[in-house]
Amino acid sequence: MKRLLSLLLAAAIPTLPALAQKFEGLVPTPPMGFNTWNTFATNISEVLIMETADTMVKNGMRDAGYNYIVLDDCWALRTRDANGSLVPDPAKFPSGMKALGDYLHARGFKFGIYGCAGSKTCGGYPGSQGHEYQDARLFASWGIDYLKYDWCFTETRNAKEAYTTMRDALFAAGRPVVFSICEWGNSKPWEWAKDVGHLWRTTGDITDSYNAVQRWERGWKLILDLQYSQVQPADGPGNGIGQYAGPGHWNDPDMLEVGNEGLTFAESRAHFSMWCMLAAPLMAGNDVRHMSPEILAVMTNKEVVAIDQDPLGKQGWRFRAEPSREIWVRELANGEWAVALLNTGDTAAELSIDFPHMGFLGNCAIRDLWDKKAAGTTEKAFTKRLESHDVALLRLKPIK
Amino acid sequence: MKRLLSLLLAAAIPTLPALAQKFEGLVPTPPMGFNTWNTFATNISEVLIMETADTMVKNGMRDAGYNYIVLDDCWALRTRDANGSLVPDPAKFPSGMKALGDYLHARGFKFGIYGCAGSKTCGGYPGSQGHEYQDARLFASWGIDYLKYDWCFTETRNAKEAYTTMRDALFAAGRPVVFSICEWGNSKPWEWAKDVGHLWRTTGDITDSYNAVQRWERGWKLILDLQYSQVQPADGPGNGIGQYAGPGHWNDPDMLEVGNEGLTFAESRAHFSMWCMLAAPLMAGNDVRHMSPEILAVMTNKEVVAIDQDPLGKQGWRFRAEPSREIWVRELANGEWAVALLNTGDTAAELSIDFPHMGFLGNCAIRDLWDKKAAGTTEKAFTKRLESHDVALLRLKPIK
Repeated sequence: MKRLLSLLLAAAIPTLPALAQKFEGLVPTPPMGFNTWNTFATNISEVLIMETADTMVKNGMRDAGYNYIVLDDCWALRTRDANGSLVPDPAKFPSGMKALGDYLHARGFKFGIYGCAGSKTCGGYPGSQGHEYQDARLFASWGIDYLKYDWCFTETRNAKEAYTTMRDALFAAGRPVVFSICEWGNSKPWEWAKDVGHLWRTTGDITDSYNAVQRWERGWKLILDLQYSQVQPADGPGNGIGQYAGPGHWNDPDMLEVGNEGLTFAESRAHFSMWCMLAAPLMAGNDVRHMSPEILAVMTNKEVVAIDQDPLGKQGWRFRAEPSREIWVRELANGEWAVALLNTGDTAAELSIDFPHMGFLGNCAIRDLWDKKAAGTTEKAFTKRLESHDVALLRLKPIK
Repeated sequence: MKRLLSLLLAAAIPTLPALAQKFEGLVPTPPMGFNTWNTFATNISEVLIMETADTMVKNGMRDAGYNYIVLDDCWALRTRDANGSLVPDPAKFPSGMKALGDYLHARGFKFGIYGCAGSKTCGGYPGSQGHEYQDARLFASWGIDYLKYDWCFTETRNAKEAYTTMRDALFAAGRPVVFSICEWGNSKPWEWAKDVGHLWRTTGDITDSYNAVQRWERGWKLILDLQYSQVQPADGPGNGIGQYAGPGHWNDPDMLEVGNEGLTFAESRAHFSMWCMLAAPLMAGNDVRHMSPEILAVMTNKEVVAIDQDPLGKQGWRFRAEPSREIWVRELANGEWAVALLNTGDTAAELSIDFPHMGFLGNCAIRDLWDKKAAGTTEKAFTKRLESHDVALLRLKPIK
């Protein structure tokens, strides 16, 4: 009997159905929203979230597409309860997470939260390792729509296993959740995460600078560079990690630092533009309650956001990189293009794009999205004076 | 603030206390008991367990040390309940696991159960991946004392991570549990499992034959050989995987096939003897309700069991391997030795141990543990006629 059983079991193994999967259809374009970490870190509360949501309704951010409001780390107590459940810090969230979710849902937002694949979160709060299904059920009971899932204290854990386990747990809990893989690119998630999560971090953390390195954090320009050095340099379409992104599964170069104190206005605007070129998730990381009108105008520029949200979902690539100039190109739906011209130099300069030598773009009319005006055609070079670290963002439309 | 926090967190990481650990002091000598798998596989029930326990009280097995009664795979329903809890099959266990544990505890037994580190058990029942803490709490509520934890359907999971997660979950649940790592030796658990579990399988499954290979199952002599080929051949003390075993942490060459139909009496007796030489867990895998008096006498031979349970806890090693003869040596407490002489040939033969050429043993009196009589001293060779695959098991005591 024993041997017979063994044979039967062996025969059954390959035919067991795949019971769990990723929720499909949630992010045909990159998710947009707000996340607490970059500005608030541990200093979070339900009041902050409610005020943020109220502000985003009033200032037009919600209607511009920023509809995921995500609580990052430090929302929980440092220990689970006797049943092993995560407990929201009652000092920060006295009304509880279900009430907070209801508040957000009533205002047209989705509710996101943070967890970690290790024994602890990066901030030392309880991780979900070994608690995945229980935590996923709890999140579902709170109305969670988005989970950012971090990678601290994972020791020997295998990343694909860890994220697949939480994917399966979320699926079993039954409530559709956008699953944000925050594994910092260590195990090349672009190679395996398409069917596991909806977005995956490609690098370590961003910080509010242009190119500084602060321990494991990097300025946004260095993160932009890392989109190439992560894999073999590949300045062209179809190569590099850009090939792994598309509707429903996105490379995530980390949340926005737009409007934060370490960036000039030009650097904030260029950072935003380049994230749109990358088809990156646009998760505001500033204090939206106290943002300048200029920064609000950047983040809600409909024509710029439309580059990020282009339905074709193809990530842009770096066409040219020189000491003081980069040119990026992104293919859009309906044969249109986005082109970015970035002043990477330390001073203002007159920079050009030699469109006649970029024949693959075809004959197009050019619209300058920050100046909000037509800017000629691709029959001749485009030239613009740009401040240091500023950008020109152009949309090209074929001339029939 | 953000950067300050990052620095604080980074500083805190190395100093976080180790909150979880293995339960210590449970198995100063290798665990002994009974496990359902080898004979009963899926055909298990509370009646079987109760009858087995009653038999083991009556026939002396319990008092000989066989005190762990372990339910192997196939005890659960194929799906978890709405809360994610494992559910014992009510057709097999109508009284529930708590009642069964109470029955065993009242009779002086410990209660063991089976789980799996993957999404499913080897038999296709629910695995504990992502449910570790919840399952550990449930086991504790049932009075579980021993967990055999398997390795099917683990895909990309890292073994050390998987078993450490369940170790931590068991520790958090608070009830001391012997943790039996059943990972088949794939990731060399002897190198990492000492602080994770109490015993770890070194090979794939055993089957009731001497040396046949049946898919992933192997005869006990092949498993004995694998104790050496698993790592660099090392026929000597202090080398090979034997060096990793000791009080509280044991190599596990798998459960006993003693008394099962595929083995001759000689093969059963030799198998038992060699497992004692290996300081192996002695988990009966036969139907103890219907065992022959001869097999019962083998399994309850106090002098032989004492070799296995020797308090020094040093595993034996293969001193000599020849086409038709193997000699194994095990150092015991108080300067004594166990020596096994195995007839690996296909026919009965007169075999010898040339004690005068094994000076490291010193001058000892020899006792033949199966014949239960004195057998001279190590001043001259020991010779005995042995049936094919039979064994002589000797205990050597220094002559003062």
